[in-house]
Amino acid sequence: MTRLIGPFAQALTLRGLAARGPLRDEALEVIPEAGVAVGGGRVVAVGPWAALAARAAAAGWAVERVEEQPALAGAGPLVLTPGLVDAHTHLCFAGDRARDYAHRLSGLTYQEIAARGGGIQDTARATRAASDDELAALNAARLRAHLARGVTTVEVKSGYGLSVAHELRQLRVIRELGRRAPQRLVSTCLAAHVPPPEAASPRDYLDECLRDLLPRARAEGLSGRVDAFIEPKAFPVDLARPYLAAARVMGFELTLHADQFEAGGARLAAELGARSADHLEASTRADLEALSAAGVVAVALPGASLGLGCGYAPARLALDVGCALAVASDWNPGSAPMGDLLLQASVLGAAQRLSGAEVWAALTTRAAAALGLEGVGALDEGWAADLAAYPARDYREVLYYQGALRPAAVWCAGARAL
Amino acid sequence: MTRLIGPFAQALTLRGLAARGPLRDEALEVIPEAGVAVGGGRVVAVGPWAALAARAAAAGWAVERVEEQPALAGAGPLVLTPGLVDAHTHLCFAGDRARDYAHRLSGLTYQEIAARGGGIQDTARATRAASDDELAALNAARLRAHLARGVTTVEVKSGYGLSVAHELRQLRVIRELGRRAPQRLVSTCLAAHVPPPEAASPRDYLDECLRDLLPRARAEGLSGRVDAFIEPKAFPVDLARPYLAAARVMGFELTLHADQFEAGGARLAAELGARSADHLEASTRADLEALSAAGVVAVALPGASLGLGCGYAPARLALDVGCALAVASDWNPGSAPMGDLLLQASVLGAAQRLSGAEVWAALTTRAAAALGLEGVGALDEGWAADLAAYPARDYREVLYYQGALRPAAVWCAGARAL
Repeated sequence: MTRLIGPFAQALTLRGLAARGPLRDEALEVIPEAGVAVGGGRVVAVGPWAALAARAAAAGWAVERVEEQPALAGAGPLVLTPGLVDAHTHLCFAGDRARDYAHRLSGLTYQEIAARGGGIQDTARATRAASDDELAALNAARLRAHLARGVTTVEVKSGYGLSVAHELRQLRVIRELGRRAPQRLVSTCLAAHVPPPEAASPRDYLDECLRDLLPRARAEGLSGRVDAFIEPKAFPVDLARPYLAAARVMGFELTLHADQFEAGGARLAAELGARSADHLEASTRADLEALSAAGVVAVALPGASLGLGCGYAPARLALDVGCALAVASDWNPGSAPMGDLLLQASVLGAAQRLSGAEVWAALTTRAAAALGLEGVGALDEGWAADLAAYPARDYREVLYYQGALRPAAVWCAGARAL
Repeated sequence: MTRLIGPFAQALTLRGLAARGPLRDEALEVIPEAGVAVGGGRVVAVGPWAALAARAAAAGWAVERVEEQPALAGAGPLVLTPGLVDAHTHLCFAGDRARDYAHRLSGLTYQEIAARGGGIQDTARATRAASDDELAALNAARLRAHLARGVTTVEVKSGYGLSVAHELRQLRVIRELGRRAPQRLVSTCLAAHVPPPEAASPRDYLDECLRDLLPRARAEGLSGRVDAFIEPKAFPVDLARPYLAAARVMGFELTLHADQFEAGGARLAAELGARSADHLEASTRADLEALSAAGVVAVALPGASLGLGCGYAPARLALDVGCALAVASDWNPGSAPMGDLLLQASVLGAAQRLSGAEVWAALTTRAAAALGLEGVGALDEGWAADLAAYPARDYREVLYYQGALRPAAVWCAGARAL
């Protein structure tokens, strides 16, 4: 059953954008007085309201006028956009790290806090200790917060299990979450987050993951993606390379935590043909050129820069050397507790002089590319009907308010979810 | 009639903090299982719940258990803090500047956009064109948004009138707003925002303001504060000095937009004994030392840095040389449209390694000092009963979530306002 939704003051379709490299705002298609027809979870048509209304009458489509919909009466003019794609989160966790944060403000570094028993190990303890129901409730609340900010596709990593059994358990919790959430979830196995203290050695732990975890994750259909935190204090390049190469042979797509504090990860991502390299705060031009040459999506995580009070990834430079740039929230309890993707991307855009088109692409089509998703992130025939409607007259207001303007309505696969 | 409110998991009182210079978290008074008694708009007592409950029974105070209050049942543990003080806003405006923002992302500077007819003049046109009712509705919505983020005292500047008549009109709109809003409003005359194009010369305009505007503003009780944007392209130091000196003689307190792009304003603020110098992105150590020596409050405006994508004011250095540091939102449609004070202060704190105590003081007692308010910004006997309750177990969570944690309840002068 096809439904025509609208009219919207504008539709920002984001279709037809180049897959990589710089974008000018002139590349954006903006349809005034627009409508969108949806059916079977997909966009059937997007275009001027008058033409679609005529088509609806002829074809017998249902018509949902936005001003007659719940919570939209009186919302005023609406701008329709694709839902946002968050290509990098760690939102499956229990506990918080407010004390770590206070310590960091008082002068300790992220690495010093980890060395004192805070950091990822602390979250792993809390996550292991939480029941499945507790974890599910925490995660569901976070996904609701993301929905209220227009995020309709969410990557979620494991990585707070840090043993074969607990990583599997976390991946199963994420799968269950994906079945219940309105959003599209993409699960990633980040067993190689930090070496667990109980492992005989980091290498032993990775060997165990290769032997016991990844085949099981694959067999149960828990995840098709493997991630690793490439950093001297987590998994150095030479230790991670054989693990990741073996995962790739097993059929997993690769995505890496690369160059957050020290370079090395981006080059490894390029060498291994990873789908994406995420963080990149420490990347040089040559590192970014390697990503561009290998077709690896560069994922900037400004939430971690804001949380840690560090510099941003060189997003402008990444675009200028031809990368596909995505922006993700990195939502996690340690370095990026805020979780507000649109705000973070807007702030990064202002700091790095990214055009509106570059920021929008980084939040939608290019983020979908980082996840290997096709037909997600733009309003176009046959694409996923993941939609957000912002209370604004002009699409430029959405980035301008830097996160303070929230969607009045969100649809996931054509179904009203907010 | 005295009411005892609680119990709260913690109360962060912020009383007894030094008025200026660095602060360590150990200086913070945190009362576990706390209550607050309020009466006549003021705090009657703050302390352990058990002791206050006994006192309430003996004295016949009303007792308001938080878990029985509207919208607080099921909120879980609450942390009580003073309401936030926003010492610098331009929130009385109409229109938006989303197009300016898009231009800026595409590479134009703030100054270039102003030279093309965007910028402050554009907002002045829209503000002049809006009716009193339209302006009041826009302002009230912004104050509600601020309330939802825990802000209970708000400075509001004129400055989008840019003629004697329109500045007076804006100050009257702000006064009316202050009568209707739950929050405490402090009004500032910023007629000297930018020179209006219709003035014969910037000097003529300032002379007109001195002759016709300020005496009238004083006579009507519209404002006791005068501000000027000290910048070569707005009002250079030598032009502003006699205007500000004359305003001071008329009895106005001074606050300056200082050193946003070029230094000079902070030194002038010190020379004139201004109450505060705001912005300071371009200030040197010597400029900050001058502020410290003159007892001028240094006000950082990270919202403008996030909006413009520029560097932050040297807040760490300001504290280290002995300044009282306040943080304000600078909420305005050009450079700081986000308006989220808590988020901005938290992000600044992370970037500049400010302790939690320093950020909290900058949002409360030291911000109140920037406005010349006594007895505002801490939970202490006789102080204003402006309160916020956050859904958290530990006060450190409030800054940690970087604005994503919003108050579950807010009281202005003892009255529940959210």
